[in-house]
Amino acid sequence: MDLSFTRIAGGIGAPQGFLTSAVSCGIKNPAQPRLDLACIYSATPCSSAGTFTTNRVKAAPVRVSQAHLRKGDIRAVIANSGNANACTGVQGIRDANAMCDGIAKPLGLKRSEIGVCSTGVIGLPMPMMRIAPHYAALIAGLGPDQGAAVAKAIITSDTHPKELAIAFELGSHTVHIGGCVKGAGMISPSMATMLCFITTDANIPSDSLRKGVLECVEDSFNRITIDGDMSTNDTVLVLANGASGMSQIRRHGPRCKQFRAALRWVMLELATAVVRDGERVTKFVTVNVCGARTYLDAKKVAEAVSKSALVKSSWNGGDPNWGRIIHAVGYSRARIREELVDIHIGGKAACLGGLQTATPMDELRAIVAAPEFEIVINLNQGAADYTMYSSDLSPEYIDFNRSEYAYWKQARKDGLV
Amino acid sequence: MDLSFTRIAGGIGAPQGFLTSAVSCGIKNPAQPRLDLACIYSATPCSSAGTFTTNRVKAAPVRVSQAHLRKGDIRAVIANSGNANACTGVQGIRDANAMCDGIAKPLGLKRSEIGVCSTGVIGLPMPMMRIAPHYAALIAGLGPDQGAAVAKAIITSDTHPKELAIAFELGSHTVHIGGCVKGAGMISPSMATMLCFITTDANIPSDSLRKGVLECVEDSFNRITIDGDMSTNDTVLVLANGASGMSQIRRHGPRCKQFRAALRWVMLELATAVVRDGERVTKFVTVNVCGARTYLDAKKVAEAVSKSALVKSSWNGGDPNWGRIIHAVGYSRARIREELVDIHIGGKAACLGGLQTATPMDELRAIVAAPEFEIVINLNQGAADYTMYSSDLSPEYIDFNRSEYAYWKQARKDGLV
Repeated sequence: MDLSFTRIAGGIGAPQGFLTSAVSCGIKNPAQPRLDLACIYSATPCSSAGTFTTNRVKAAPVRVSQAHLRKGDIRAVIANSGNANACTGVQGIRDANAMCDGIAKPLGLKRSEIGVCSTGVIGLPMPMMRIAPHYAALIAGLGPDQGAAVAKAIITSDTHPKELAIAFELGSHTVHIGGCVKGAGMISPSMATMLCFITTDANIPSDSLRKGVLECVEDSFNRITIDGDMSTNDTVLVLANGASGMSQIRRHGPRCKQFRAALRWVMLELATAVVRDGERVTKFVTVNVCGARTYLDAKKVAEAVSKSALVKSSWNGGDPNWGRIIHAVGYSRARIREELVDIHIGGKAACLGGLQTATPMDELRAIVAAPEFEIVINLNQGAADYTMYSSDLSPEYIDFNRSEYAYWKQARKDGLV
Repeated sequence: MDLSFTRIAGGIGAPQGFLTSAVSCGIKNPAQPRLDLACIYSATPCSSAGTFTTNRVKAAPVRVSQAHLRKGDIRAVIANSGNANACTGVQGIRDANAMCDGIAKPLGLKRSEIGVCSTGVIGLPMPMMRIAPHYAALIAGLGPDQGAAVAKAIITSDTHPKELAIAFELGSHTVHIGGCVKGAGMISPSMATMLCFITTDANIPSDSLRKGVLECVEDSFNRITIDGDMSTNDTVLVLANGASGMSQIRRHGPRCKQFRAALRWVMLELATAVVRDGERVTKFVTVNVCGARTYLDAKKVAEAVSKSALVKSSWNGGDPNWGRIIHAVGYSRARIREELVDIHIGGKAACLGGLQTATPMDELRAIVAAPEFEIVINLNQGAADYTMYSSDLSPEYIDFNRSEYAYWKQARKDGLV
């Protein structure tokens, strides 16, 4: 397939016909306000698609956005950081609805045309008294150049905002895809603790967009893990408004394939950016399992290795400990045979047929000392493969996550708890 | 059921007719020898039972011991620490067989009457040249008072040996059960990274003993987790020699129930001792799930909460973070309803019906600040329950597990790699 594209600036504001904005409400800490409320708006009606956490405990905004997408397409999104609006009961649903109403009325849209997302601490009521006064400024600020501000407004423990945009030729038109993502902890397969927004001026019908988004999320966001914890708020929302002027993409046509490839590339870039910026992460590790009897076996092995606390600790220490890797392969519940397993670290054989190789330890240590490396686990039993993107687990991660007490103190000051 | 017993000294040496010993071979580090090779021997034929890791990567001694138990009862055990003899291929099997032969011949037993266990680093060949010279001393040292030495010889990263013994009346005879256990990391349900030996002078047929051991392991060792990593070497071996002089315990009789209750108590004491002595553990947390629709649902919830890196980090920080607990409940794959979930921490309601309660935060913090506390999660959907014994996850755990390079350096010095 011919797929070449150019990285451009502008993030989710880069595609034509999208206006965005962000403001500071002081949701997390009124004494130190930072950008924490964002809006994305398509000037024209658009197709939309979303995927959401499979956690049975779902935040109120997840429930509300899912309901809106079931009714039809959404055309605008409101998102906040600093409070997840999760485990907040009926009041949480009311607050999420109120956020939708806050931008729906001034934009002349129905409530069900709005997507709503929240990320932050779980279990505390939303400080709506700090959000509501800012709807007007949020709408007034909408412009074509505010993509970076949205990327900034949705981050929590991330060390930096993460966004990108690309331009590529689709038929005779130039099409753009822009995206931003937040997420650094509570990252695990089946949707990470993560918000991701993607805009595009491609012209694609909703059903086709939805199918493409599901497929691309499966190949990107569902393949990353930092700490193995799945969040209550994970959301990917994609809006496609057709403002590039192209004719509608036909299902199964060549342009459909090309668009999907571009979308997959954008999602994979954003997903891996989340791992690279994981909480106190020092290594980015690609875990590539091949030679499995089935796709599911390959996936089980990749997940077990990527999530093992002992394996991740050894990566943190720069230790190419294949013994710990194979022990995780063994407990993955995949049908493996120890005596067939090969493990390559950065292209060097560490284990062949379940046994240690003669590769000098120092060569392997040099590979694992680098900030990025690849582990290839060949089960030598079939043709199925699966790749995951993982990280080390550092003492600093635990330190960082020892307490969320500061959030509770603020909530008490606000009279919310 | 009437079940009262007395704690006594002597560990696995306490039951009548068992002789034990331990010697220093310098398996891990010849420059700093410590007790690392142990032997347990019943002076008379006995019943035996074992349970082993369900990891598909099984250490050589696990495979050999399983084969021996399939042939009949074992009467003696040889165990070492410092090297797991895992992922060592055909040579590993040869070495495990050689260890059995090392004590079988002087004891006048067949090889298949010996159980063999190893624990330590994975993937390095056994330094047999340091073990073989010590068989004679191991046999010569066999005595009735060496239980504590065995408990000491099997530990690795444990901070202290863990053993106990009890005496109780069974019918008209006094019966003893002794046990010791090692394990501190790679601890997870479905058998921990762990060796456990239990001796008893009860008179019980093998089939009945096996059934009891399976049941008691399910209620004890399979319910503990420290880091969620399942080892290649986990083994529980139980020897019953009938030396108390009692008549054989009849299946389904009252003495069978009493014996099983005592065995369960001993195993639970040993299993929880492993968690309390977990690598760099500062908290012992009982996670009690009730009100589940099925046993499996209760188990899934207990496991998800007990293994969550974020939940364990918050326990380390003394943070009674019920939001993180309910998020793990949600991703456990159990059929739960968020709005029915109650969470009590140390008897105080932290979350009722999926929502925060008015319990003052400082009261909850005081509970979680203690070294031991209980979390009760009521799903309010049924009558099934499940209990797990967990710990916090500390920055020091990661630090401790960052590298096993020292092992490799020694193996290279020995010319083994």
